[in-house]
Amino acid sequence: MLILPADRAKAPASGTGHPRAARILIGNDFSEDVRTDRGWTGWWVQRLVWFAEPGDILVLPVRPEEAFVEYVTSLTGTPPDSLTIVVPPAHAGSEGTLSPGRLADPRFARMLDEAIGEREVTQVSALWPDTAVARLARTLGATGATPGHGFIDQAGGVMVNSKSAFRTIAAGAGVPLPPGAVGISPEAAEESVWELLTGGPVVVKHDFLSGGRGNEILTRGEPFRPIGARRVVRVSSREEVRSYLGQQWEWLTAGGRGRPVVERYVRDSSAFFVEFLVTDDGVRLTGHGELLSAPYAVGQIMPSQGLEPEVLERIVDGGRRLAQALHAIGYRGILGPDTIVTPERDVLFTEYNGRVTGSTHIYGRIGALVVGEGFGRDRVILERVWPEGWSTPSFPATREALEKAGLGYDPVTRTGVVLTNAFDGTNGVMYCVVAEDLTAAWARDRALEPLFAAGSRQPA
Amino acid sequence: MLILPADRAKAPASGTGHPRAARILIGNDFSEDVRTDRGWTGWWVQRLVWFAEPGDILVLPVRPEEAFVEYVTSLTGTPPDSLTIVVPPAHAGSEGTLSPGRLADPRFARMLDEAIGEREVTQVSALWPDTAVARLARTLGATGATPGHGFIDQAGGVMVNSKSAFRTIAAGAGVPLPPGAVGISPEAAEESVWELLTGGPVVVKHDFLSGGRGNEILTRGEPFRPIGARRVVRVSSREEVRSYLGQQWEWLTAGGRGRPVVERYVRDSSAFFVEFLVTDDGVRLTGHGELLSAPYAVGQIMPSQGLEPEVLERIVDGGRRLAQALHAIGYRGILGPDTIVTPERDVLFTEYNGRVTGSTHIYGRIGALVVGEGFGRDRVILERVWPEGWSTPSFPATREALEKAGLGYDPVTRTGVVLTNAFDGTNGVMYCVVAEDLTAAWARDRALEPLFAAGSRQPA
Repeated sequence: MLILPADRAKAPASGTGHPRAARILIGNDFSEDVRTDRGWTGWWVQRLVWFAEPGDILVLPVRPEEAFVEYVTSLTGTPPDSLTIVVPPAHAGSEGTLSPGRLADPRFARMLDEAIGEREVTQVSALWPDTAVARLARTLGATGATPGHGFIDQAGGVMVNSKSAFRTIAAGAGVPLPPGAVGISPEAAEESVWELLTGGPVVVKHDFLSGGRGNEILTRGEPFRPIGARRVVRVSSREEVRSYLGQQWEWLTAGGRGRPVVERYVRDSSAFFVEFLVTDDGVRLTGHGELLSAPYAVGQIMPSQGLEPEVLERIVDGGRRLAQALHAIGYRGILGPDTIVTPERDVLFTEYNGRVTGSTHIYGRIGALVVGEGFGRDRVILERVWPEGWSTPSFPATREALEKAGLGYDPVTRTGVVLTNAFDGTNGVMYCVVAEDLTAAWARDRALEPLFAAGSRQPA
Repeated sequence: MLILPADRAKAPASGTGHPRAARILIGNDFSEDVRTDRGWTGWWVQRLVWFAEPGDILVLPVRPEEAFVEYVTSLTGTPPDSLTIVVPPAHAGSEGTLSPGRLADPRFARMLDEAIGEREVTQVSALWPDTAVARLARTLGATGATPGHGFIDQAGGVMVNSKSAFRTIAAGAGVPLPPGAVGISPEAAEESVWELLTGGPVVVKHDFLSGGRGNEILTRGEPFRPIGARRVVRVSSREEVRSYLGQQWEWLTAGGRGRPVVERYVRDSSAFFVEFLVTDDGVRLTGHGELLSAPYAVGQIMPSQGLEPEVLERIVDGGRRLAQALHAIGYRGILGPDTIVTPERDVLFTEYNGRVTGSTHIYGRIGALVVGEGFGRDRVILERVWPEGWSTPSFPATREALEKAGLGYDPVTRTGVVLTNAFDGTNGVMYCVVAEDLTAAWARDRALEPLFAAGSRQPA
């Protein structure tokens, strides 16, 4: 599944240059076939709008906030009225997600046909490389417009988003990994955990969950604050390891749909990502950055700052080897490998994400397109998950508060806060800060606190 | 996991030329982590002896039959007293297999150390690329002597022996497949089965079982004789499909350790295999043949006979693409893709086997080494599973019966019957017939019937 993160000039979209062409961009989320915790993601997938080019057809689980669409397109320069938004009929239980059932709904097929009109479908892209998207492309007679169609159709999305398959392929590609193993059975996992525990804490990872929410740390010693994990479990004997795995196996394997990973937990490491675009032509580096956790994902810095060039080179090289390996087995689209850098400056790869990630629109559209050529040279982006304790009532109110405080993004100075997604339905809007350097970015980030921290007065 | 099927001259073994070198060959079977139906295979893995070169260390779950070792080495020319056989202490429940526990037993490590002596371990090979073998290689400090060690260590053996991973990678490599899907969830499998059923019978395949024993055919019409499947299930509604999958899901997924495959069942097809050796240097074709089923595997013909050159070329080309894809993700060893050839002469790939298969010793050692250069040119091999209803009391009795009847293999005429494995513990010995052509091979095969068919008189 391919979405070009930038290269507007090189890849003219539906309306520009090719008036008879239609691109279909699908705002889906992690496949429901392997993960069923994602009903809340109706707002999260609206980041799709960042990728829209003139004339595109955007498929979303809910009608996107108009204020958000207007805001994003004002920054990307895509005329909002050139876009067609298609929302498949809601199905009970998947109102907030593009479930396989909704994407296969014949009423949706008719809506899409109407949106396409007389145009030729030149690209079917999706945030997540789901079999349901491959099926839809087949229905549209557009398999040739779907990069990597065969791979995705045969569940390749699961393979390129599985932590266990990652370890197999990464080891095969000679990419450095934390010591560990794939838990192909409870017995094998027990053996590996027990062996690793002699050297310190061990992290057990759910095959598919992300942002640290699928990680648990086992330790024989004192509890400590886990970073990138949801809890610490103390085990003092092999029997306790067995009992832990027995209790958690159903959860760790997503009900038998995946295989957990068992790994040495490396303390005091920093986390980085690197992303590549994998096309028929090969593999191209598109971006990199640092991942901040406390203990779950709280933000990102793009591009990554302060890394020794030699360390960054090892991150990029290892990531490229992974991307090349997946290219060879037929994956097409974004590949985002994650790494840790240890206190000894070892670079160890921890997972890959074969999907449009939560970083792609930041570096690929806000960075490359909105900020433009200066991104990564004289501008850095600090992206932030909406901080705990902050509150805002809506997208327009957030935008207004920013602008009144003079903190919104200014195209002239190429600095300021960009709202990166729609209102989260509760109390926040994800955002990023564009600044000259990281210190300036954090300073601007702190300036937001009075606007949104609970108890603080909204500016008049 | 690498075992060279031939190339004796190119790859000198332990004793020849490199007196200080030791190869360790491990007679293991399908990983117990994903498959637990293999306790009976103590005799089956004795085919390992065919691969032995002077000085090799052979690890087997049971002490191999001396008469079998003497017979095999008399044909391969490997001095039997140059071999060291190591049998790890038996563990309750895995007396007949090299379980992970037996391979990790410290007593076994000491036995192996003693067998190695002062020599350097130059190769650790196994029939099956199991994590337990990778672990053993680490214990021996011989990871560098284990081709593809990292991949195997991180459960690559499961990936290269899984029918679901096969479909993903094959589709990604652009290899032709029967229409179908990976059953990533019961719902996805139901959708695919129901869609395919409109076009005829559908085969549902267990991720890991082999020889047709993991295949069931669903049909909406009349029952028919299933080839390469264990039964036919009639379904007349989507609810019945759902109910079938619900009942069978635990079995089809090997208790949640794999994903079933759903495929169009193509009637009246013939089945072929092709094998490649995947090394650091790349991919090399090692053999091909036809697979005979009635309804389970009953034999093989090597090399395949009577195929149009253009059809054989498509078999080899598709197989090579698969081997190259697995090379790119780090697999090293034998890769045996299977295909069917339809009545319309379509070549469709149905699975791959990343292991030393039941064909490798036949074409690679009996063909290439015992028969020699004429194999495939003026000699063909018909391999036979011991026929139902035949009976023999032991390996020596079988050999004697063959020789008395003048049917044993004759190195001068390069024709005759070769016993391919040890006594199966019940009533049979697998064998193959070397002959000038397939007609002559079947004639010689028929000549065996009076010797072993129940009720027939043993020759005096």
